[in-house]
Amino acid sequence: MCRLLAWNGAPRYLEDLVFVPEHSLVHQCRNALICKTPINADGFGMAWYSDRPEPCLYKDTHPAWSDPNLAQISRHTKTGLFLAHVRASTGTATSRNNCHPFASGKWSFMHNGQAGGHMQFRKRLDTMIPDAYYNHRLGGTESEAIFLIALGLGLDADPIGAVAAAVQQVEAVSRENGTTPHMRFGACWSDGTRLYAARYASDRHAPSLYYRVYKEGVIVTSEPLDSDISAWIEVQPNRALVVEGGEVMDLPFTTALAA
Amino acid sequence: MCRLLAWNGAPRYLEDLVFVPEHSLVHQCRNALICKTPINADGFGMAWYSDRPEPCLYKDTHPAWSDPNLAQISRHTKTGLFLAHVRASTGTATSRNNCHPFASGKWSFMHNGQAGGHMQFRKRLDTMIPDAYYNHRLGGTESEAIFLIALGLGLDADPIGAVAAAVQQVEAVSRENGTTPHMRFGACWSDGTRLYAARYASDRHAPSLYYRVYKEGVIVTSEPLDSDISAWIEVQPNRALVVEGGEVMDLPFTTALAA
Amino acid sequence: MCRLLAWNGAPRYLEDLVFVPEHSLVHQCRNALICKTPINADGFGMAWYSDRPEPCLYKDTHPAWSDPNLAQISRHTKTGLFLAHVRASTGTATSRNNCHPFASGKWSFMHNGQAGGHMQFRKRLDTMIPDAYYNHRLGGTESEAIFLIALGLGLDADPIGAVAAAVQQVEAVSRENGTTPHMRFGACWSDGTRLYAARYASDRHAPSLYYRVYKEGVIVTSEPLDSDISAWIEVQPNRALVVEGGEVMDLPFTTALAA
Amino acid sequence: MCRLLAWNGAPRYLEDLVFVPEHSLVHQCRNALICKTPINADGFGMAWYSDRPEPCLYKDTHPAWSDPNLAQISRHTKTGLFLAHVRASTGTATSRNNCHPFASGKWSFMHNGQAGGHMQFRKRLDTMIPDAYYNHRLGGTESEAIFLIALGLGLDADPIGAVAAAVQQVEAVSRENGTTPHMRFGACWSDGTRLYAARYASDRHAPSLYYRVYKEGVIVTSEPLDSDISAWIEVQPNRALVVEGGEVMDLPFTTALAA
Repeated sequence: MCRLLAWNGAPRYLEDLVFVPEHSLVHQCRNALICKTPINADGFGMAWYSDRPEPCLYKDTHPAWSDPNLAQISRHTKTGLFLAHVRASTGTATSRNNCHPFASGKWSFMHNGQAGGHMQFRKRLDTMIPDAYYNHRLGGTESEAIFLIALGLGLDADPIGAVAAAVQQVEAVSRENGTTPHMRFGACWSDGTRLYAARYASDRHAPSLYYRVYKEGVIVTSEPLDSDISAWIEVQPNRALVVEGGEVMDLPFTTALAA
Repeated sequence: MCRLLAWNGAPRYLEDLVFVPEHSLVHQCRNALICKTPINADGFGMAWYSDRPEPCLYKDTHPAWSDPNLAQISRHTKTGLFLAHVRASTGTATSRNNCHPFASGKWSFMHNGQAGGHMQFRKRLDTMIPDAYYNHRLGGTESEAIFLIALGLGLDADPIGAVAAAVQQVEAVSRENGTTPHMRFGACWSDGTRLYAARYASDRHAPSLYYRVYKEGVIVTSEPLDSDISAWIEVQPNRALVVEGGEVMDLPFTTALAA
Repeated sequence: MCRLLAWNGAPRYLEDLVFVPEHSLVHQCRNALICKTPINADGFGMAWYSDRPEPCLYKDTHPAWSDPNLAQISRHTKTGLFLAHVRASTGTATSRNNCHPFASGKWSFMHNGQAGGHMQFRKRLDTMIPDAYYNHRLGGTESEAIFLIALGLGLDADPIGAVAAAVQQVEAVSRENGTTPHMRFGACWSDGTRLYAARYASDRHAPSLYYRVYKEGVIVTSEPLDSDISAWIEVQPNRALVVEGGEVMDLPFTTALAA
Repeated sequence: MCRLLAWNGAPRYLEDLVFVPEHSLVHQCRNALICKTPINADGFGMAWYSDRPEPCLYKDTHPAWSDPNLAQISRHTKTGLFLAHVRASTGTATSRNNCHPFASGKWSFMHNGQAGGHMQFRKRLDTMIPDAYYNHRLGGTESEAIFLIALGLGLDADPIGAVAAAVQQVEAVSRENGTTPHMRFGACWSDGTRLYAARYASDRHAPSLYYRVYKEGVIVTSEPLDSDISAWIEVQPNRALVVEGGEVMDLPFTTALAA
């Protein structure tokens, strides 16, 4: 399982959250607490929004703590909306294309969890990716497949419903394949304006997900960044968040949001 | 277009051919002669056979001349059968998974050329890869697809016919897609005993391919390694080679070898 | 010899100069014109100034054209002052620490050229670096040594004189060592406000250096970025530039600026 | 602190020790037991001897477990004498040049430990490296400095005494600098015939070092590779080993071996 962190609010340096806090994302690379795999050293990635509509993607296969470019860029880049991720592989190779976040057009997406046995049904997942998005299929993870399937299911029109539907479809394939856990899903995604997040599992073990509201904005993360635990709100399983303008909406994570 | 080089014969150091000659493969990275793209710096790879049945694969995304590990390994590894490749991308990304050679079981395979427009029909190529070999689909090149399709068509039973059939199938997709050149194909492949090679194109521009017979073995290469041009025999278009025990068989490159 | 490019003026995207023009820096990686080595694929680097006093350094050993992170960052980062460099090694290894620009505090520095035989007198160069700056000695190039020696000679107080003095000292060592060319020096450096540049050689072959004044700012570069040659002004040997506020001062490149 | 492993005996595949055992070196990257830093993911390296006098060096900055080339080469390379190392940095950067083992001529060397405060007196260490070996000073670690200083002190003539003298010299600098621990030293080195090792510290905390004698050869390692603890012999502090022909000599680690 991986670790993830997102910010939506006033512009701030990436390093303020990625490197600096007591329990920053880079710290979690070596010492994740609420996590079965305490080491997340199979690459990392960040997507942030500048004044272009599409995000800037920076990803690499080194452990986050040992990349001097990451430290530099985090120290010099300010943004009001970003996603950051450190990876612990569940089977697929350590390659830049398998690092999160993934991006297509204005959208970025990152995932913590897995579809059990996904290495066995990758071809089927590939087939489920619409032709229009197939050239964005750069790696082999089920996470990237969920994102591209969601794009095909109408992410623009229904940002939560489309992801829920994609998760449901991929879970169904895992279920049919008979491999467990069918689906573990903690994720954040963004269109450059709103930040979305969801927590879900096909069993009792939904990946941890928290948020905290500050005056200047909102952090969503797989584990609290400091020991002031009471300030962090745990997202419940089967729930999704929409973060915008300092406000957090907590909604059901279903395929029929609009309905 | 890329540059490739293969050896089948007495054990020798990789560096004897990859680094040392007047016009070695690493030299060709910067100064290819018979080639539209004189720079081949989008990664490299080697597959060599030791005393295990499957080949050893060493591939990386740096230019071959700047990888100190490659220089070391080439200087210390002796083998009687190897394939080596330097890459100039025709569109797909510079990633290890897109570097040649590719390998599956005992087989290794490398390609110089392209199927025109392959980025547009990658999903279709992926669908043509048999389920049994899909987990060997690591990158996005049409070259790797040809190899995996050939495996599904019976590479073990008919090493030349299966590759010819795979090339034909991929060419058909390119033709249907209306993108040229439909197929340019210079390639070497091996099962650990024999070395195979073929030269073919759907138009008049089949990628160059040469071989030379020495007392100790045979070199197959996309361009001669020295200026003793008369010693190098040009493979003709639509022909395939089988190299074994110092002998070279020159055969038609057709799908019906056995027939 | 390497290729270099710098901008001082209105904030603009890095990619506008590094990737976009007819003859951009990334284009020059493969097709340098005014250069003995047309391939500059031994790494690259950029230093840009944001709202912190010290520059942001992004350097890597891949060819500039094949790094997807570089393309992303160049597309999303705007700055009014930056240095960019593509490297063709003159002997030292391809490693991030040997890539330009170098940085220390507010200063950044990049160099095109060489001190002949520098691999033979590296220890002596190291000894010339003041203790206070020795922890910034990360690689083995004579370029980095010149920069750190200049820092020790008072770069803050006399930005041109200190570099000229450092060049003179290193040239003296090369001269004593009897290796030619003793010194070839085309360089840009910056304190985050002004952009400095100089052109010099101990023989007749000073590395090329040009600048062009636009309404929005000034480009300094080792070769013109477009075919409108008349708009580019060639810096003469033994001359230095100070660029600030859209103005270019052309001064002698001597150790006694203040005198 | 790092983890290290060496073999001297009958030729065997590198992977038999580096990847396969219960507690292999690659396993120790994530789960070192007898070690303050359980994660050793700041690069790795191997030096092995083939039929050339000098060793083959393969080093990289990725965690050992995520490098597909390392897995391939370890699976296909057989050797009777090798050194392998996984690194946890004590301050110097994650770069290939700072990865162990180091090599010069026929010699290879790797180290687990540190000279306290070495970042503060690197210039002094550099000055202690003889001119003849200065071009082998590629990185910035005190480990590499100890090796090159030992070469200058006569490693060929007195392989244990020269290392002990180099350790003493570097410890003296640390002592003078007032930084602790002055010296922690667990190391292996080889001339291609014999394998040497030593365990030492300026305080009570000498880095752990063990060996085990098999019918086919001898393993020296920073921690046992399996749970059959009684079979592993702990090297005592201030002792050195000479391994040759299946025999282990246990000697004092002093500067005056010959005396």
